[in-house]
Amino acid sequence: MSQHFADRLSAAIAKKGTAACVGLDPVYGNLPASLRAEFAQHDAVGAFRVFGHRVLAAVADLVPVVKINIAFFEPYRGPGVELYFELVARARELGVIVIGDVKRGDIGHTSMAYARAQLADSDAGPGPDAVTLSGYLGSDGISPFMEVCRAQGKGIFVLVHTSNASADELQHVELSSGSNVAARMAELVNDWSHADGMMGKCGMSAVGAVVAPGDVSRARELRGLLPDSVFLVPGFGAQGRGIEQVAACFRADGGGALVNSSRGVIFAYEKTEYAQQAADDWDVAVRHACEDLVGSLAQVGSAK
Amino acid sequence: MSQHFADRLSAAIAKKGTAACVGLDPVYGNLPASLRAEFAQHDAVGAFRVFGHRVLAAVADLVPVVKINIAFFEPYRGPGVELYFELVARARELGVIVIGDVKRGDIGHTSMAYARAQLADSDAGPGPDAVTLSGYLGSDGISPFMEVCRAQGKGIFVLVHTSNASADELQHVELSSGSNVAARMAELVNDWSHADGMMGKCGMSAVGAVVAPGDVSRARELRGLLPDSVFLVPGFGAQGRGIEQVAACFRADGGGALVNSSRGVIFAYEKTEYAQQAADDWDVAVRHACEDLVGSLAQVGSAK
Repeated sequence: MSQHFADRLSAAIAKKGTAACVGLDPVYGNLPASLRAEFAQHDAVGAFRVFGHRVLAAVADLVPVVKINIAFFEPYRGPGVELYFELVARARELGVIVIGDVKRGDIGHTSMAYARAQLADSDAGPGPDAVTLSGYLGSDGISPFMEVCRAQGKGIFVLVHTSNASADELQHVELSSGSNVAARMAELVNDWSHADGMMGKCGMSAVGAVVAPGDVSRARELRGLLPDSVFLVPGFGAQGRGIEQVAACFRADGGGALVNSSRGVIFAYEKTEYAQQAADDWDVAVRHACEDLVGSLAQVGSAK
Repeated sequence: MSQHFADRLSAAIAKKGTAACVGLDPVYGNLPASLRAEFAQHDAVGAFRVFGHRVLAAVADLVPVVKINIAFFEPYRGPGVELYFELVARARELGVIVIGDVKRGDIGHTSMAYARAQLADSDAGPGPDAVTLSGYLGSDGISPFMEVCRAQGKGIFVLVHTSNASADELQHVELSSGSNVAARMAELVNDWSHADGMMGKCGMSAVGAVVAPGDVSRARELRGLLPDSVFLVPGFGAQGRGIEQVAACFRADGGGALVNSSRGVIFAYEKTEYAQQAADDWDVAVRHACEDLVGSLAQVGSAK
């Protein structure tokens, strides 16, 4: 029997002393010039392989969690997807918890196939420790993933609230109850978070939520609706999320959230402040940016 | 400049004389015994390849559209995804319009990566003619796919209404406007369906909707909210959708919907009524079931 996801996550956050998560979203045009010189665009997968392994090596001892976004691998079809799972496996070998950012969402047999494909360890190899999901179709779409959580000590993060310009089109529409669509989704996620086997000994659930706080009051409202779910908070850094908005995603005890930064860390060598490294030492810049991410998040306690 | 998706779809439906769509959702345990004898479970991809090509050959002259569900290929990782795109390309070669059932949904850069990966024809090879999407994140998630629709004459079908047991948990929650979540999603899809370049000469849009009618009145309500969107109606046959519910998804002129059956056709040889064929002639059973699907749908006109 595998250890519960929330307990593993909680231990990893305590061990590394940070709730920072590094997002691996490789884009050929943003790779270091030295890598693009070595691998032409038609061998982007070869470049992504070197890039991914070096980024993981640079950050693995600093952060408890990495998030790998399959969308950036799928344009390369079979070889891209194989590399995605190779990097998932490598991160796990390095002792880092891996979230597969896949945002799948379907029902019945189809959802079972996705759960087997995207979350489960199987004959095909290890899967990530957790995945992101869409909950629009309700429990029928989520329960096959919860079965894998139970059987293999894994977790899920369901899309609840995003802060993109068009999020208001659906998520913030008012319900007759006075609530709104995102808050209703939060209620569903809260139900799932307390289902059989989902709560860990640490007091958090294997069922978490993707919550990008648009403002502090909204983050607090969702925190109240989801007391035992870990919030995966995207866009710290590159998307300009402020420290106060992020702080509102944590519980009063300082736990309950993971804060992700992708481009701000993995493409750090593009920024003047990190560009002092030699061309081939770009992963030193990545490591410095990761250290700075951890340092910024240490301020969250004082911002609460 | 590629021809508009809605016009191609409309011409294909007129040519084949039916709005039937066959869904290719391969599952190893449901394959014909002769195929399972030839390919062991560890070579499921080999079995799916033969199965997929023979199913496509059996139905290509009967139906205007096939829907291929990537979820059933993803458990086999790289080789599975490669086969998915091989079958997408083969269906297009056979002159059938292909919907990639992928239900992706993200925002910004990530959504652009998915649009490139799952819908566009690219250096990696041809993509499907259309894909299914989730719209929970609003326009930001959809617009990168609409760019591909414009540039390459492709289409999208956005999840609006499903009829699974848990659909009521979110989709049918009442809004303060008196409407409900699915109807609000329909309004968004209707806006997208009239965006620049989306309307075809035939009077239908490249932006369609996935609508599984729970009952006739709900189907009619959504039809009214989405006058120019093609409805992709899943679950005819296996999921027991009745002819009247399906009929309510069509426009008054008899157009505007595609009706999908997956297991009822592709696994037809499992049923007594089609089992008279020799073990190796299982694709004759598939063809007969497809003919029966087309025949059943011909009754839709009289059920309206």
